[in-house]
Amino acid sequence: MMVRARGASGGLTESALIERLKNVLAQQGAKPRGVRVGIGDDAAVVAPIRGSLVWTVDASVEGVHFDVRWLSPTDIGARSFHAAASDLAAMGARPVAALSSLIVPSRFDRRRLLELVQGQAEASRELGCPIVGGNLSRGGELSVTTTVLGAAERPLLRAGARPGDEVWLIGDVGLAGAGQLCLERRLAPRGRAAKAVATCIAAWRRPRALLREGRRLPGRAHAAIDVSDGLGADAGHVARESAVRLVLDEARLVRLLRSELVEACRVLDVAPLELALSGGEDYALVATGPARARGRGMRAIGRVERGSGVLLESNDGRRRDVAASGFDHFRGRT
Amino acid sequence: MMVRARGASGGLTESALIERLKNVLAQQGAKPRGVRVGIGDDAAVVAPIRGSLVWTVDASVEGVHFDVRWLSPTDIGARSFHAAASDLAAMGARPVAALSSLIVPSRFDRRRLLELVQGQAEASRELGCPIVGGNLSRGGELSVTTTVLGAAERPLLRAGARPGDEVWLIGDVGLAGAGQLCLERRLAPRGRAAKAVATCIAAWRRPRALLREGRRLPGRAHAAIDVSDGLGADAGHVARESAVRLVLDEARLVRLLRSELVEACRVLDVAPLELALSGGEDYALVATGPARARGRGMRAIGRVERGSGVLLESNDGRRRDVAASGFDHFRGRT
Repeated sequence: MMVRARGASGGLTESALIERLKNVLAQQGAKPRGVRVGIGDDAAVVAPIRGSLVWTVDASVEGVHFDVRWLSPTDIGARSFHAAASDLAAMGARPVAALSSLIVPSRFDRRRLLELVQGQAEASRELGCPIVGGNLSRGGELSVTTTVLGAAERPLLRAGARPGDEVWLIGDVGLAGAGQLCLERRLAPRGRAAKAVATCIAAWRRPRALLREGRRLPGRAHAAIDVSDGLGADAGHVARESAVRLVLDEARLVRLLRSELVEACRVLDVAPLELALSGGEDYALVATGPARARGRGMRAIGRVERGSGVLLESNDGRRRDVAASGFDHFRGRT
Repeated sequence: MMVRARGASGGLTESALIERLKNVLAQQGAKPRGVRVGIGDDAAVVAPIRGSLVWTVDASVEGVHFDVRWLSPTDIGARSFHAAASDLAAMGARPVAALSSLIVPSRFDRRRLLELVQGQAEASRELGCPIVGGNLSRGGELSVTTTVLGAAERPLLRAGARPGDEVWLIGDVGLAGAGQLCLERRLAPRGRAAKAVATCIAAWRRPRALLREGRRLPGRAHAAIDVSDGLGADAGHVARESAVRLVLDEARLVRLLRSELVEACRVLDVAPLELALSGGEDYALVATGPARARGRGMRAIGRVERGSGVLLESNDGRRRDVAASGFDHFRGRT
């Protein structure tokens, strides 16, 4: 490849449009190291790499994963790229390269398409993960499908958590969920709340894949996952795959909540802890590992026990199951 | 990953549907060699591989690349997989693994979704290219995006054709284009023509990526491409990237046309040669290389000269430019 195009766009011939998109992506600078053939042939060619290949694909679909009223084309491009790359962070992998497949309706004009690709290029630069090819198709509905390839000597899985491990949180949770709620409810408060709401909305619009943080996990953590569906639900995946129970410490978790989340939740009239547990799309990381191995930015929020599920334990020792918190993408919010 | 699902499908919970899809894909047999983590974690993990990575993505969109009236769900799955894998054939790469990203409207019910995945699984087995993960999203329009990873010691590019090379055709051209025309025109002839039309329609419905044939090219060919847009247009890509002229020999090309194409074209009232030059989606391969290196299944249809473009030369020495034959996906048939 590629970027190869099928069935697309407003007056431009295939080759003219692709030339423009190539130029936007080429602002990545010189041909990245290791990329032998980038955009333009039948397939991209990447020099041999050390370690196992870690490989993931993620799609962002208009009306399902984003609302074009709330996101600029650049946001859509950057956001979808970080969402895809976040899976590499969860595996402790280093990024190698990415491919982008766009389905673009004719009403999404050339200018916006170029802005979207600009957003992808920005994210790609920020994460050190060059876009080496892709595919462009016409279609009735905008979607961005990003495939990301990484490498790791010892990829971290969801399985591997052991009784006695601590549970670590890397990054923030709840902000993006609060931001989305603020947009849905068209909140426009003033003063301090305005800044908090803006921070939450920015967290939703422009999440950041924690690749650098993820790469510090192998050798320390036993298991990891990224929080795309909500802390409760994603911790639940680790518990299930590792056949253990995760017990989250309510007091510790509350202490870690960002003040902007607390402030925005006051305006939203929602409990910050609930959003922290059930709000997705922050792309924080949750890992488990022995206390002695905990490193910078890994904040203990609980422990691993024998058993199953994810329990939230309050100061008085009461426990409630929170693995079901979060978003089941088939059924809606549970 | 994965197969992870977002925003999807008819009553089934995410996990129940994914379990079913995993089972369909698992009929691939035991976990394929080299696949360390398949469906179910944040990303797939593939054991270290030798050689450069050859990597491509292709999307099939309902109403753009296929019409659901003409294809069963199984056809859609198999066809999209072969179309994506064909890029590996063109690079002379061996397949390593694939990821599938599906966007599925709610009207496309669970039964058909499972059939579609069955079609992908069939193609994956046939080509020895295991599907190790994917993504499932709800959306308004059915699309299948397939990412295929391969490896090659010396990947073949479009650039590399040299004056003095022969032009080789591997596989058939024109059949799929004729098949699509027969479907569009709702042709249902009797007798010998019926068999020819059925062959053409089958070529369009169930193309085959020539991976085995492609792997015989490195060491023999200097350049290669797969014919997705039409022989004229795709030969044009080789000419442009290699900065040479390809001269196709009309008499040789006509001799190679399949009798079923000739027969179907009689019913269609179309010149078989025109369909051979402009009909896409057969996924034949075109390569160039020195005559002494030509191997089994590589049929000489012309030669490479200094110059530019793709010319068709008739017996009396007349030449016409055919690089523009084929499908510009932005503008329609040219």
